[in-house]
Amino acid sequence: MGLRVAVAGATGAVGVEMLKVLERSSLNVDELHLLASSRSAGKTMTFKGEELTVKELTEDSFAGLDLALFSAGGSISKKFRQACVDAGCLMVDNSSAFRMEEGVPLVVPEVNPDAAKQHQGVIANPNCTTIIMLTALAPLHRVNPIKRIHAATYQAASGAGQAAMEELYNGTRAYLNEESFTPEVLPFPYAFNLFPHNSPLQENGYCEEEMKMVNETHKMLEDQSIKVHATCVRVPVLRTHAEALNIEFTNEMDIDEAYALLKGAPGVQVLEDRESNRWAMPIDASEQYDVYAGRIRKDISQDKTLDLWVVGDQLLKGAALNAVQIAELVLG
Amino acid sequence: MGLRVAVAGATGAVGVEMLKVLERSSLNVDELHLLASSRSAGKTMTFKGEELTVKELTEDSFAGLDLALFSAGGSISKKFRQACVDAGCLMVDNSSAFRMEEGVPLVVPEVNPDAAKQHQGVIANPNCTTIIMLTALAPLHRVNPIKRIHAATYQAASGAGQAAMEELYNGTRAYLNEESFTPEVLPFPYAFNLFPHNSPLQENGYCEEEMKMVNETHKMLEDQSIKVHATCVRVPVLRTHAEALNIEFTNEMDIDEAYALLKGAPGVQVLEDRESNRWAMPIDASEQYDVYAGRIRKDISQDKTLDLWVVGDQLLKGAALNAVQIAELVLG
Repeated sequence: MGLRVAVAGATGAVGVEMLKVLERSSLNVDELHLLASSRSAGKTMTFKGEELTVKELTEDSFAGLDLALFSAGGSISKKFRQACVDAGCLMVDNSSAFRMEEGVPLVVPEVNPDAAKQHQGVIANPNCTTIIMLTALAPLHRVNPIKRIHAATYQAASGAGQAAMEELYNGTRAYLNEESFTPEVLPFPYAFNLFPHNSPLQENGYCEEEMKMVNETHKMLEDQSIKVHATCVRVPVLRTHAEALNIEFTNEMDIDEAYALLKGAPGVQVLEDRESNRWAMPIDASEQYDVYAGRIRKDISQDKTLDLWVVGDQLLKGAALNAVQIAELVLG
Repeated sequence: MGLRVAVAGATGAVGVEMLKVLERSSLNVDELHLLASSRSAGKTMTFKGEELTVKELTEDSFAGLDLALFSAGGSISKKFRQACVDAGCLMVDNSSAFRMEEGVPLVVPEVNPDAAKQHQGVIANPNCTTIIMLTALAPLHRVNPIKRIHAATYQAASGAGQAAMEELYNGTRAYLNEESFTPEVLPFPYAFNLFPHNSPLQENGYCEEEMKMVNETHKMLEDQSIKVHATCVRVPVLRTHAEALNIEFTNEMDIDEAYALLKGAPGVQVLEDRESNRWAMPIDASEQYDVYAGRIRKDISQDKTLDLWVVGDQLLKGAALNAVQIAELVLG
């Protein structure tokens, strides 16, 4: 008998991708329940050719289910966690609500699959930027422990949801038509513009998104001594993040060795054509499962340090895909 | 009596800005000659309300002139250098042709004004990204010498000229209208996309733009021992560059001290509202003279290291304005 699965937040940008990923997944999904707020209840979505009706997410939604993939925001995850766990339904949560909680594994299957086994009913899906970064870095870190990461990100609209993607579209169209446009989802105009990530500023001057990269890296690599620094920036791109990574290793790492490690790594593809100065771009990685990496250089300013350019679909590996892969790891 | 000035490459994106900057400049321009290729000769442009006709740039263009601002590409600069210098006309060159040549000062007036005095007929205008970076860093470096710079850039279309700006516009319009579009100026699709800077790749894996930031910083700060690392990326923004700078100093530098230094620095404005998590953006700096800086943080991963977010108009401080400021320094 197959699995009985729910997607909570099914109508959001990540929810929509979760359905598509589940269709292609190795999980044997017998029943799929689409859950959302009462506002979205009654809408229909297609799964494996079948039309399904979105139902309102309630505390009774989880009875008899094996798996609930949550992507409806942290407050919804917190509200329904107990009901989900009490029903014996594994919660894989895409929000940041439980990521740093002890006893809640934070998992990227290519990075720390064993952590998933320790779950007590809830597994957290990491921050998108961190997933994409660590998927590419884990194979290098395993053979030559990372001492310091310096990341500069180029983040897409999708991290702020479907409405932000539409705002980028509509704001850009208005700009080109010389019409006025007032942003309502993101705090600043986005058309042909960019801005440091708008997540709340922390005491230390880092924004929340940047500190997620620090803290979640520590948790997943199980090493608080790894130095992590990030600057997160939203750029006018729709759904794929890019990251310029500068990595100091414990020992010298050869460029060829780094390429060989990445080429053999699950979830990673080396995509580049050095001869034509062509490297992975958002349009390459959009709607793709793998993280695309390349442009490995030796940092001329520091020993034992390599640069790496990484691009990954924010909605897929950065969210929906990784969540389903966690479920495959535990229930597959 | 006022100055007799030429702009070579007057019809290009930078040339157009040079005219506007000259109009507002303290230079007493008596005569302005607009020079360009034979293709553009005959076009008219307005300067101080007067309609001027573009003439073909030839070896005879410089007779009797005091100043020629060149922005027509490196090969044109090389071709006409001798004629210009022989005519006793100061050449301020926006191309990269002579920047690293001994005897040719490379000048940002806020950074190394004294270097300009040593000229032998030619002064080079630095790379746009380097100008914007060093305008903000010079006041810090003077009181606490920089040991290492790690820069990640978010560069606008204008760095590749007017045609690239139009390609970004037209490519984006086509994208929104779901029409096909083939880029002809830049090597890759630019609408809602980004890519590592397309300047030629060097032996060491850095692109030319990145090595300009390294080499030009060394020359202008007159210190080869400063470590510089850069990752340059073109983002879909029209004319303003942003840079995420991570700066290791010789000694600890307090955040408040850094702010105070920047607030008193010429050519720099601190623009931010920490309370509302709002930092300088391309739309703030576009068409502005000053470099906008802020978002100063202590790097939690490294001692004596601050982060700084810098935004500057590529066509103005990154090109036309700095060139005119060099002329003001020498001829004003």
